[in-house]
Amino acid sequence: PNDAIEYENYFSRTLLDRRSDKRTDSKWLDTKQNHPATVYIIFSNLNPLVTLGGGEDGSQQPEVRLCRLCHKDVKEYMSQTEAVTLIFLGVELQLATLNGGVLKEDEDDGLVAWFALSIDATFAEQFKQKNEDCYFLHPPMPALLQLPEKEAGVVAQARSVLAWHNRYQFCPTCGSATKMEEGGYKTTCLKEDCPSLQGVHNTSYPRVDPVVIMQVLHPDGNQCLLGRQKRFPPGMFTCLAGFVEPGETIEDAVRREVEEESGVKIGHVQYVSCQPWPMPSSLMIGCLAVAVSTEIRVDKNEIEDARWFTREQVVDVLIKGNQRSFFVPPSRAIAHQLIKHWIGMNANL
Amino acid sequence: PNDAIEYENYFSRTLLDRRSDKRTDSKWLDTKQNHPATVYIIFSNLNPLVTLGGGEDGSQQPEVRLCRLCHKDVKEYMSQTEAVTLIFLGVELQLATLNGGVLKEDEDDGLVAWFALSIDATFAEQFKQKNEDCYFLHPPMPALLQLPEKEAGVVAQARSVLAWHNRYQFCPTCGSATKMEEGGYKTTCLKEDCPSLQGVHNTSYPRVDPVVIMQVLHPDGNQCLLGRQKRFPPGMFTCLAGFVEPGETIEDAVRREVEEESGVKIGHVQYVSCQPWPMPSSLMIGCLAVAVSTEIRVDKNEIEDARWFTREQVVDVLIKGNQRSFFVPPSRAIAHQLIKHWIGMNANL
Ligand SMILES: Nc1ncnc2c1ncn2[C@@H]1O[C@H](COP(=O)(O)O)[C@@H](O)[C@H]1O
Ligand SMILES: Nc1ncnc2c1ncn2[C@@H]1O[C@H](COP(=O)(O)O)[C@@H](O)[C@H]1O
Repeated sequence: PNDAIEYENYFSRTLLDRRSDKRTDSKWLDTKQNHPATVYIIFSNLNPLVTLGGGEDGSQQPEVRLCRLCHKDVKEYMSQTEAVTLIFLGVELQLATLNGGVLKEDEDDGLVAWFALSIDATFAEQFKQKNEDCYFLHPPMPALLQLPEKEAGVVAQARSVLAWHNRYQFCPTCGSATKMEEGGYKTTCLKEDCPSLQGVHNTSYPRVDPVVIMQVLHPDGNQCLLGRQKRFPPGMFTCLAGFVEPGETIEDAVRREVEEESGVKIGHVQYVSCQPWPMPSSLMIGCLAVAVSTEIRVDKNEIEDARWFTREQVVDVLIKGNQRSFFVPPSRAIAHQLIKHWIGMNANL
Repeated sequence: PNDAIEYENYFSRTLLDRRSDKRTDSKWLDTKQNHPATVYIIFSNLNPLVTLGGGEDGSQQPEVRLCRLCHKDVKEYMSQTEAVTLIFLGVELQLATLNGGVLKEDEDDGLVAWFALSIDATFAEQFKQKNEDCYFLHPPMPALLQLPEKEAGVVAQARSVLAWHNRYQFCPTCGSATKMEEGGYKTTCLKEDCPSLQGVHNTSYPRVDPVVIMQVLHPDGNQCLLGRQKRFPPGMFTCLAGFVEPGETIEDAVRREVEEESGVKIGHVQYVSCQPWPMPSSLMIGCLAVAVSTEIRVDKNEIEDARWFTREQVVDVLIKGNQRSFFVPPSRAIAHQLIKHWIGMNANL
């Protein structure tokens, strides 16, 4: 490999080993659900329950953190299967590697399991009344970007799977009701002769939507193309982006989206890094894209504006913090990282 | 960019510009559907209608090719909306760039549009009887790998979108019927108060499933890890692969899948290239992954076997064509390209 850097983007770090092998072990899942060491995180309407704590570095700056509850805090809700959804998230990483050994029957494996519990609006109200220092983080963006990095990865996983249950409660093949299985990672149609039950189909598994997001370089290497949508805060510009379509490569999706949105034609495309984006379940695939044309024709249906910015202008905003002319998304968004990656590159390609 | 190579994988080249802007232009779509220059390709049960023609290079070797039909060949089926599905695929590339100019009202833009038409079993039977030299390519794998490269990209797009319509006919949010829109790229729930109609949701758009597939390198750089599933032909070994999960990066999916399937731990991961895989709608994301451990513990639920193969063994099979000990997938599969990419790399990392 000629490139040893690996980018750690926000929403990509996690505290957990997913242990997908345990999803089909219902006895293990049952034991862990009732175990006093198990951690529950709570969601209402896809928003995580959080609290304000001291900063990670011991400073006094209060920081938003997940409320980590245990079985006794949630057990009264767990039996209300109509009103709650339970997802197995994994086990804490540090312990996962210590316990590879063989255990005696019924011996505690010492693994600390995490579950996400989604509760309905009525329960959420009760919850807040009982726990005055806790609240549901809302609206998700930009609020979710306040979480500590490692918790963000757990929230990304939980929020995406919960959003899938929220929107995919019926079998898309026949319209019947479904049942949840495998710790929340599978749904199965309840209609006996449904074609979705013959063979393996993606209708049963959570959806992940690949999205390309690209830092477009001017052919001179010293300018980049940034655009804005109408719904953005005034002055904000960022990398162009769009969903990968069926039958399309990452590289072709980059070329298609840039040309559709800005009229600029792209030659070479290079993958840089990616970031899960739980709104609700995207995988942002970050690329550098080298333009082979420079004239901009904005498609007003897709974006409001797109412009070439010089390296100097971007350095001014990103490094010197001079945000008078325009600004870019915060450092926890992959667009910021892509722009920064370009700034760090040699000026001449 | 420090890496100017771009891989053209099978299923990734295409004859067409998707022209997604035309999907909402129903007048244009109507005109093109009835236009004599328009190309129709036909599917039955997700299998494309093909014929045997002369080789692309004029040689006598017969080659499987798509049957390209025109409006008069298909118009009797088009009105049977219960039995057919019609997808707009795009316009032929070579003309797309010549006609950027402004046209007078009703003037022909000269664009050659392509549509995929899926017909039911009864119609398919009639079709075959009328067109004796045509047949539906079946089973899809490995048959689809016989198509000329550029047609393969069109088939990948069409098959993935048709497979989505096939399995997603009902609204997953409420179970109601849906209607198709935007040339086949959108479905909308017919129930007026369905939550899927508030805001934009992925329930309305075709699904693309990101999959990681990885060439795993031994820490010594001179061996690679290949595995086999029970359903493979005897003797075939290939790269490990698996679906990306919600809230997961490409790099972490590579690490998780390799460790789950083989017990081998991965350090650095590097993206190489990708390939659409229309079975039914995957995006295969090809990576190099450097192992940091070497002991293999095969998870028999996922694969049957996994082994380290030396560079010599792989060169023997891949370059010298000596397939006595084992063999790898054909050159049109991304696994083959990943293995070849490694063979071409410096022996020492
Ligand atoms: N989107 C998906 N489509 C099909 N299978 C999936 C999906 N996501 C996860 N899986 C799991 O992956 C297995 C198939 O993997 P494979 O043998 O690599 O095709 C299935 O049995 C499922 O358990
Ligand atoms: N999986 C998807 N989820 C949401 N929107 C999609 C999807 N695929 C395509 N789209 C289109 O992308 C638009 C939203 O793009 P964006 O503004 O980048 O979030 C929607 O209005 C749809 O037309």
